[in-house]
Amino acid sequence: MLFRQLFDSETSTYTYLIADLATKAAILVDPVKEQVDRDRKLLDELGLTLQYCLETHIHADHVTGTAQLRELTHCQGVVPQNASAACADRFLADGEVLMVGSVEIQAIATPGHTDSHNAYFVNRDRVLTGDSLLIRGCGRTDFQSGDAGTLFHSITQKLFNLPDETLVYPGHDYRGHTVSTIGEEQQWNPRLANRDRASFIELMNNLNLPDPKKMMEAVPANERCGKVAVTT
Amino acid sequence: MLFRQLFDSETSTYTYLIADLATKAAILVDPVKEQVDRDRKLLDELGLTLQYCLETHIHADHVTGTAQLRELTHCQGVVPQNASAACADRFLADGEVLMVGSVEIQAIATPGHTDSHNAYFVNRDRVLTGDSLLIRGCGRTDFQSGDAGTLFHSITQKLFNLPDETLVYPGHDYRGHTVSTIGEEQQWNPRLANRDRASFIELMNNLNLPDPKKMMEAVPANERCGKVAVTT
Repeated sequence: MLFRQLFDSETSTYTYLIADLATKAAILVDPVKEQVDRDRKLLDELGLTLQYCLETHIHADHVTGTAQLRELTHCQGVVPQNASAACADRFLADGEVLMVGSVEIQAIATPGHTDSHNAYFVNRDRVLTGDSLLIRGCGRTDFQSGDAGTLFHSITQKLFNLPDETLVYPGHDYRGHTVSTIGEEQQWNPRLANRDRASFIELMNNLNLPDPKKMMEAVPANERCGKVAVTT
Repeated sequence: MLFRQLFDSETSTYTYLIADLATKAAILVDPVKEQVDRDRKLLDELGLTLQYCLETHIHADHVTGTAQLRELTHCQGVVPQNASAACADRFLADGEVLMVGSVEIQAIATPGHTDSHNAYFVNRDRVLTGDSLLIRGCGRTDFQSGDAGTLFHSITQKLFNLPDETLVYPGHDYRGHTVSTIGEEQQWNPRLANRDRASFIELMNNLNLPDPKKMMEAVPANERCGKVAVTT
C-alpha cells in the first residue's frame, strides 16, 4: 500500500492519498480545492488511477477538490450516508467497506462534529478520523447539526474500541503533529481522558470559537461536491 | 521503532522523533527552538528518554531547540563532523552509526547546502535528508559555504545510490508533501532528473533567493547549539 499524508497550510487540512501498488488504483480522502493541481501531479507521477474522492464529512473550513478531480479524472465522489450532497456517486454507511485494489477502507460512522461523519479504518492498522478525534483534541460541535454528546459516544464507544496500537491520522492539526495512536489519545487527549459525558458536553458547549473564515462559501459548495456557485 | 514527523509551520521545518519502544530511548533530529515545549510534552507523554538531539547541519532559517533540550533533559547534542558548533557533545563522520536503543542511525555526509551536512539513514529503510534532497527540490547553495557542484555529487552519487524504495523524509517542505522515495526523486525531481552537473550548477547559481528571515539570528545561535546571545 502507498500511503501519503498531504497538508494544506492555509486551512491546516490533511488530505490522504492511498493506493494499491499492484493495481495502481488510488483514492484521495478529503482533497482540498486549492491543492488539486498538486494532487493530480502526484497521481500522474506515481502512475496512479484515481478511483474515488472520499469525504469524511461536509467540511466548513475548506472547499473539497472533488468536483474538479471528478472532471479531470472521472473518479467517483463518495460521502457518508445521509450527508447532504445529492451530487455524490456513492454513500457509505457504518461498517461498509470500499475496496481500492486490495486496500480495505471500512467506514465507521462517527457523527457529532457534523450529523453525518465517517472515520475510515484502513487495512485494519490505521484510522483516518476526519474531524471527530484529533491529536490531543477533537472537532468542534457548535454548527452543522453538531452535537457534543453524540461526538462523545462516537469517540469513546467506537474509535476508542479500536486496538490501542491503531495509528490515528486526523483531518486537521494545528500544532504540527502528524500522527498518533488510539492508546495515546485514550490516555492523553485532554478533552477525553478522565472526562465523563456531562463534563465533555459542558466543555464543548463553552468553547466559544469564531466561525471558520470560509464557512459561508465552503458548506454550500461542499453540498454540491465542491462546485462553487456562479453568482454573476 | 516509533517514528514521528513533526512540523513547524512558521519555518516549514520538519523535526523527527525516533525512539526504540523496548528501551524507550529517543532522539530528536533537527528540533526547533519554538517547539521545545511541544516536543518535550510529547516525550513525557510517551514515556521516552531523550538521549540525543541530532542536527543535519547548522541551520540558517530557524534556531535549534538543542540548547534548551540539553538543559531540560541532559541529552547530548550531536552534529556533523566539521560543523562549526564547538559546543556539541559529539560529531558524526560519514558512515558513522549512532544507536538509539536498537535503532540504527547512519550518517551519510551530504555537503553542498552547507559545507558540513549529514543525511541520516534510519534502520536502512528511510533517510532523513535535511536540506540536501527535498521532495521535488533541494536545498539552496548560495550561503554558509554552500556549493552547487558539491550538492550535485552528494545527491546523485550518495543519496541516489540508496535503494529506490528508501523513504525520503526531508528537513523542510513548502507545498504540503511529507514523504517521498529515492526512486521517485530520481525520476521526478525537477532540479535533478535528466540534468547534468553543469546544468544543475547553472540553475542553482541563478536562483536569486532572498536570505532567510531569521538568518542573522539563527546561524550564530546554532553555532552555539541554539543558545541565543545575551545582548544587553
